[in-house]
Amino acid sequence: MPKLVDHQKRKEQIARATWRVILKQGMEGTTVRNIAKEANLSLGSLRHYFSSQDDLLAYAMELVKEQAERRIVSIASQDLPPQEKVLKMLLEIVPTNDEKMAEMEVWLTFTAHHKHKNQGPIDDGIFSGMKKIMLYLENENVLKEKINTDLESEKLYALIDGLALHAMFDRDRVTSDRIEAVIRDYLQSICSGQENGTS
Amino acid sequence: MPKLVDHQKRKEQIARATWRVILKQGMEGTTVRNIAKEANLSLGSLRHYFSSQDDLLAYAMELVKEQAERRIVSIASQDLPPQEKVLKMLLEIVPTNDEKMAEMEVWLTFTAHHKHKNQGPIDDGIFSGMKKIMLYLENENVLKEKINTDLESEKLYALIDGLALHAMFDRDRVTSDRIEAVIRDYLQSICSGQENGTS
Repeated sequence: MPKLVDHQKRKEQIARATWRVILKQGMEGTTVRNIAKEANLSLGSLRHYFSSQDDLLAYAMELVKEQAERRIVSIASQDLPPQEKVLKMLLEIVPTNDEKMAEMEVWLTFTAHHKHKNQGPIDDGIFSGMKKIMLYLENENVLKEKINTDLESEKLYALIDGLALHAMFDRDRVTSDRIEAVIRDYLQSICSGQENGTS
Repeated sequence: MPKLVDHQKRKEQIARATWRVILKQGMEGTTVRNIAKEANLSLGSLRHYFSSQDDLLAYAMELVKEQAERRIVSIASQDLPPQEKVLKMLLEIVPTNDEKMAEMEVWLTFTAHHKHKNQGPIDDGIFSGMKKIMLYLENENVLKEKINTDLESEKLYALIDGLALHAMFDRDRVTSDRIEAVIRDYLQSICSGQENGTS
């Protein structure tokens, strides 16, 4: 189905052009016109792929989500001690390199914009991911006994997004080494330490 | 000095009008023209108080910071067990009511805008506040022995801003009760529990 593949490819190209526009100009400059220009398309052909700006933005965000998911699934299949595996997964969400930093920035800008338009919460799937991680650690018997997995998932989710935010806003202090140290320290604090793969 | 007081008061009114415009229209709509309209002033008189939009925004943000500081200083002077005192202080930063939610939203919108303009990191004073809180808990001998106060301050800072972000984006799940439960749980995890004022 070459036609379908091309269609999909072109949509991805447009989504990537959208990210670049958001990164360069913020939501203020993220107009259909500017996106078409960045993607080297006419307004008409852009509209062939996306009927509205909201459609286009939703698709561009879906791609950010998918990219992160792909990276995490690939770690899940690796043979690693549970605590180490979780650390690696979490480091895929926090922006520790340019690509992830751009994802985060696009995501945050979009989310703030969405909020202003009063379009309700967006589910980025990260909170449910955190719950899965807690259950995984519990099932692997590495979690301390008194941990409340529901509250702990909320805490981890806040920690991860807070680190992501700070990495974005103050990259000099919040380096990838520092992010890793904080997450490692956090995992030590909730794990019983019977596993020795992490240190 | 009635003249100076009036000047100060008027500047505050303009800053509050700026917040309302940011809340209603996002940074896209936060123009000097819209702010003047919201404050019921002519463009000319607005320019009498602030020579540029950047000046005005910086001042409006400074006010958000001062408001939070005032609330925290008033808690610091209260006679409370250390862990309870810290909990109350932290709850002043996280948006648990409409006023604080608005502060957070204005702050985040402004910070994202500032970031897009590549104006470098903004110091909101919260990270240094977190360090002070850790040192306070350490001096009061309620902190667990193996806590690394530097890393722990970074962790707490991320936790607080992450909770603030999630409260803003999903208020139905991240209620003020849930925020309090997460912070309480976190403090229990770093404190030795020799103090009994918290439960």
